[in-house]
Amino acid sequence: MSQANAFDVSSPLTLPLTMLAVLGSAMLLNEIFERLKQPGLVGQILAGVLIGPAVLGWIAPNDLISVLGELGVMFLLFNVGLHVRSSDLIKTGRIAMLVAVLGVLLPFVAGWSIASLWGEHTTQAIFVGAAMVATSVGITAQVLAAKGLLHQTASKIILAAAVIDDVLGLLILALVSSLARGEVNVLELALTATLAFGFTGVIAMWGRRTMVRVVPKVNRRLLSDEAQFAAAMVFLFVLSALAVYAGVAAIVGAFLAGLALSGSVEKRVLDLTQGVTQLLLPFFLVGIGLHFNLSSLTTWSSASFALAIVTAAVLSKFIACALASYRLGWLHSARVGVGMIPRGEVGMVVAQIGHSMGVIGQTVYDSVVLMSVATTLIAPPLLNLVYKGAGHRAAETSSDVAELGHRR
Amino acid sequence: MSQANAFDVSSPLTLPLTMLAVLGSAMLLNEIFERLKQPGLVGQILAGVLIGPAVLGWIAPNDLISVLGELGVMFLLFNVGLHVRSSDLIKTGRIAMLVAVLGVLLPFVAGWSIASLWGEHTTQAIFVGAAMVATSVGITAQVLAAKGLLHQTASKIILAAAVIDDVLGLLILALVSSLARGEVNVLELALTATLAFGFTGVIAMWGRRTMVRVVPKVNRRLLSDEAQFAAAMVFLFVLSALAVYAGVAAIVGAFLAGLALSGSVEKRVLDLTQGVTQLLLPFFLVGIGLHFNLSSLTTWSSASFALAIVTAAVLSKFIACALASYRLGWLHSARVGVGMIPRGEVGMVVAQIGHSMGVIGQTVYDSVVLMSVATTLIAPPLLNLVYKGAGHRAAETSSDVAELGHRR
Repeated sequence: MSQANAFDVSSPLTLPLTMLAVLGSAMLLNEIFERLKQPGLVGQILAGVLIGPAVLGWIAPNDLISVLGELGVMFLLFNVGLHVRSSDLIKTGRIAMLVAVLGVLLPFVAGWSIASLWGEHTTQAIFVGAAMVATSVGITAQVLAAKGLLHQTASKIILAAAVIDDVLGLLILALVSSLARGEVNVLELALTATLAFGFTGVIAMWGRRTMVRVVPKVNRRLLSDEAQFAAAMVFLFVLSALAVYAGVAAIVGAFLAGLALSGSVEKRVLDLTQGVTQLLLPFFLVGIGLHFNLSSLTTWSSASFALAIVTAAVLSKFIACALASYRLGWLHSARVGVGMIPRGEVGMVVAQIGHSMGVIGQTVYDSVVLMSVATTLIAPPLLNLVYKGAGHRAAETSSDVAELGHRR
Repeated sequence: MSQANAFDVSSPLTLPLTMLAVLGSAMLLNEIFERLKQPGLVGQILAGVLIGPAVLGWIAPNDLISVLGELGVMFLLFNVGLHVRSSDLIKTGRIAMLVAVLGVLLPFVAGWSIASLWGEHTTQAIFVGAAMVATSVGITAQVLAAKGLLHQTASKIILAAAVIDDVLGLLILALVSSLARGEVNVLELALTATLAFGFTGVIAMWGRRTMVRVVPKVNRRLLSDEAQFAAAMVFLFVLSALAVYAGVAAIVGAFLAGLALSGSVEKRVLDLTQGVTQLLLPFFLVGIGLHFNLSSLTTWSSASFALAIVTAAVLSKFIACALASYRLGWLHSARVGVGMIPRGEVGMVVAQIGHSMGVIGQTVYDSVVLMSVATTLIAPPLLNLVYKGAGHRAAETSSDVAELGHRR
């Protein structure tokens, strides 16, 4: 993000109008999509396309929306973590690891090859590959949570794989960035990898059982109103900051914080967290849509490049992840494959870094952003398809998941 | 706010660390103050003083904190509005109006006189007067809500008077700004005044009874999860934006939105709103503390000026408002007087405008900011004093107020 995107705080109208544009359009298109039996979150992303530079031009991406969106996806993953048992995720470990690794390799190779075919230099091509790598766990988690499906086998594999995949994606980004700068330090990368995986593993393994013992003691000592919620928030941002220090994304830290607290917080904390998530999530979704921009993709060569990138992103991730989980039978492996498709904000971040380093040109940048938005829009209806009929049963059998998504 | 305060979004660490610094320090000092039987919100403001430039220098005021703080005070007033009946406020109309008018006039004259005595030019002196005018309803509302006292007579007068006082304050600011620019248009000011009072009056009078009819109909038609909350949020920001168009502060719009919805929303919406308020309110309180800076007040003349301003701000508001409500008996009128003392963010905004117009120098600016922080810190313990023993009885008789503040 550049200074050009700085949020204008000088007028008292900017804040209420920005909030209104994002929340109002998101609510409207969410409602329309739910009525058409389509995923509401696709409607919310399209709300961003609609009010953004691509169509109406009411609002451009700015720092306020991106910061609120970042907080929104952190709260979403915290919320998802609160409703999942880490032991369940760890049980899926071997398959999830395979899904993550294959799901990183194949898209990386696919992106690299296509960019090379279209005549990009090696560094540029590698950046395109890197941008295709990381799954946006937020989108899939929101669809699964809204349908009350978080406790299904495929869902757990998707969550675990997406977390591992995020770590791998950040390592590849580190590698690629140092390549672009012409200085690769293998020892440093190995250290980063160890730290990132070590941090994630330790919290996932021992976080929950530690917090089950610690939280009741802390709660007994706190006097203030809503102190449990305040303590949970502090814990959330401690782990997010630590995650970034450890070389993982802040949202992974938020997810781990939720996992660690999942056995010990009271319902009141879940309710209050839900309020924040509901308010902020539209900023994440609308924010994705705001970045949609086709203006540099009007020539034949750029349009075909963008199309190839989008197709490759969908197919490579689906094939790799379905293949890696083939032992679960075709239905479950198809669910895993589809669930890993959305790239959401992660591809955009890689593209932005490449763009700001001067490695990636406007066409490649816009193609990668299009790929991120398109994979995110394609996944929810496909998930609807492969999860057909599964939603209601799960919601009935698992009350705390229903809590997260199905409350009216 | 200038570009210098722009929030740095280039590092992934900035967001979690900023959230952590604000929420962590606020929670810690809130807890310590509650244990010392002092108002937690004083602790939270002091947390800002502690981590801000005045003491530790961990964090400087920035746009992220100010935007989240602005949202926080909007949600606080929305929340307060949800727990108050507008007919109760309107009943207090005549006394509240007198409290507001006297409570604007006396501090204005006091500020003007002191600044003139210390040798400031007329325009500067008028700006100081204008900065002394408007009560920060947020601080008092938070103290009263936390004690479950919103339904007491004095509390209703304070809320109503603070809203009127905010409108008057903005009109004075408009007048003073046009004076400073050398162009006063009486007709325009009269129009602004009519619009501002008209908007506030219409929503306060007819908002609630309209929404009691509209909300159930809208809710029956909405399909999505948590659609009631989404609709309430859209309504909140519609009224905030309209308020700014009508010449009132966005927080007054938020308060009016809460008032209008107070008879019709379900408990679930109150819970979700409470989550957002709990998360964001520390940014408002810590943000006030961050602005505390004594560095330009080290000379005898500037220190004595600042001291005179602070004393005058406390006394003029207390005397004017207690006098205006003397018919209620000394205890209630003392409550009203004390409740109107805090200036919070409003004084700072006036000072910032004067500073950015080049009318106000650094010493005057810092004195006004000190006055805002000091009046805000002084009021809560004084409120504790005049409300001694009143807290528990009120909380027992009024369950929905207890809801707002006393939930654990």
